[in-house]
Amino acid sequence: MTPVERAQMAMMLEVTASPKPGNVDRCHDYDTTRLEHFLASAILARPALEKAASGPGCGGGAGIGEVFREAVRLTTDHSGGNTHFGAFILLVPLLRGGDIAGAARVVQETTVDDAVEFYRAFSLTKVRTLPTDPLDIADPRAADTLRERGMTLVDVMDHSREHDMVAREWVNGFRLTRRAADELHRSGCGKEGVVSAFLMLLSTETDTFIVKEHGPAVAAEVKQKAGEVLAGKRDIADFDAECIDRGINPGSTADIIIAGIYIALGEGWEWDCSRKG
Amino acid sequence: MTPVERAQMAMMLEVTASPKPGNVDRCHDYDTTRLEHFLASAILARPALEKAASGPGCGGGAGIGEVFREAVRLTTDHSGGNTHFGAFILLVPLLRGGDIAGAARVVQETTVDDAVEFYRAFSLTKVRTLPTDPLDIADPRAADTLRERGMTLVDVMDHSREHDMVAREWVNGFRLTRRAADELHRSGCGKEGVVSAFLMLLSTETDTFIVKEHGPAVAAEVKQKAGEVLAGKRDIADFDAECIDRGINPGSTADIIIAGIYIALGEGWEWDCSRKG
Repeated sequence: MTPVERAQMAMMLEVTASPKPGNVDRCHDYDTTRLEHFLASAILARPALEKAASGPGCGGGAGIGEVFREAVRLTTDHSGGNTHFGAFILLVPLLRGGDIAGAARVVQETTVDDAVEFYRAFSLTKVRTLPTDPLDIADPRAADTLRERGMTLVDVMDHSREHDMVAREWVNGFRLTRRAADELHRSGCGKEGVVSAFLMLLSTETDTFIVKEHGPAVAAEVKQKAGEVLAGKRDIADFDAECIDRGINPGSTADIIIAGIYIALGEGWEWDCSRKG
Repeated sequence: MTPVERAQMAMMLEVTASPKPGNVDRCHDYDTTRLEHFLASAILARPALEKAASGPGCGGGAGIGEVFREAVRLTTDHSGGNTHFGAFILLVPLLRGGDIAGAARVVQETTVDDAVEFYRAFSLTKVRTLPTDPLDIADPRAADTLRERGMTLVDVMDHSREHDMVAREWVNGFRLTRRAADELHRSGCGKEGVVSAFLMLLSTETDTFIVKEHGPAVAAEVKQKAGEVLAGKRDIADFDAECIDRGINPGSTADIIIAGIYIALGEGWEWDCSRKG
């Protein structure tokens, strides 16, 4: 399996694992985002993932910011939905760098141009990554602000670290990506491993996508209830149904799980339990 | 969307559409074959699909038989399961030929070597394509028999036409592939279109995979009941549950639906209903 195929498999394995409380999975769609959208994105993002995997030195490869724009172009639907926005933020440097240590170097080398390209790319989507501030991705003057302040893409992520657990990965050495991969190795093969890693993350980290959509109290409640599921005190199907009913979607946790699956697959984690033994 | 991406999307859209009576879909796995296996196959088959799409003239492309071997190598699990065996039989000439008319020409140009490669490829799987006869794919002397008789791959398919509706497509101008695509255009976008096309095919054609696994009486019963679903006289969920319980899997119909989606996507059929209007 090539690194690009590992990234595509990670996107596929995350969305098909179930039950994952609150998220699109095999048995749950949201009105505007369905299982097929996630799987189409995994298939159609490939040229951008290939650009990410081939460094700028190899045949005039694209800069990181350009790769983001390509990924968004290939996977954003006409209403601006983008299913793998957060996952691309993690997968692109991981593919470019080869592993977590390499990705940590790659993000340090990003430029102001990368930041501007990133803003351009994601302004085409309806995704919100930053809290309302002069660097709000929806602000048409944000690119000028980036240039005035000389902010690179890793500076942008650092700016967002408090409010965005995906951006935070760029500036803390992909800490939760590593933890998700470790949990997959610990939990075992296949979708049960994915669900277990997902619950572990959900029970120990505040999902910042839930904070943005529903506020910190709801995010704290989800974290606590995920812990109760892990402790055997709460039924996972009930918790899943409750999240779906209330529109609570731990989207950033899912992004980090995708990155964790990508890393774990490269380290020998088995997605197909029937291959074991 | 490139032709190869259309083929991958077709594999993805077929398996995620539900309810499809008896088949693996979003809410049903079989013990040894799960949704993830089908989706992994759609992702991992890409290099073989690329070889199929680039003709032998373009950069020394592979012969049809070699493409089949590559597809099987990339997608067969260690226990010999191959989820898209029948789909590859249709997609490979369609990709090589560009459309149905081109595919019909491509199959006429296949050679004895293609037939031998095809046998080699599929002897690695547990899939059975031919009835027990001197050309049984499991017979170690089958390759010699092919050479002695000078049989090309289209001759092999012609030999199997009575017992295998997928092989039959090679020698009748991809008749059911065309009909499946027409039905998709008629039924409309997205997974409802796929389910409708699937039921139409199931109600009018005897699925030869069911014949092989369960005999002609069961296959006739499935055909009749699919017609009753279409006529509003039978509940589709009940019919689905009955097929799953009895292990009745209309696998060849699914293969033809994949080929039909591939053709329809190229003719403007919309997989994503949210893009409409």
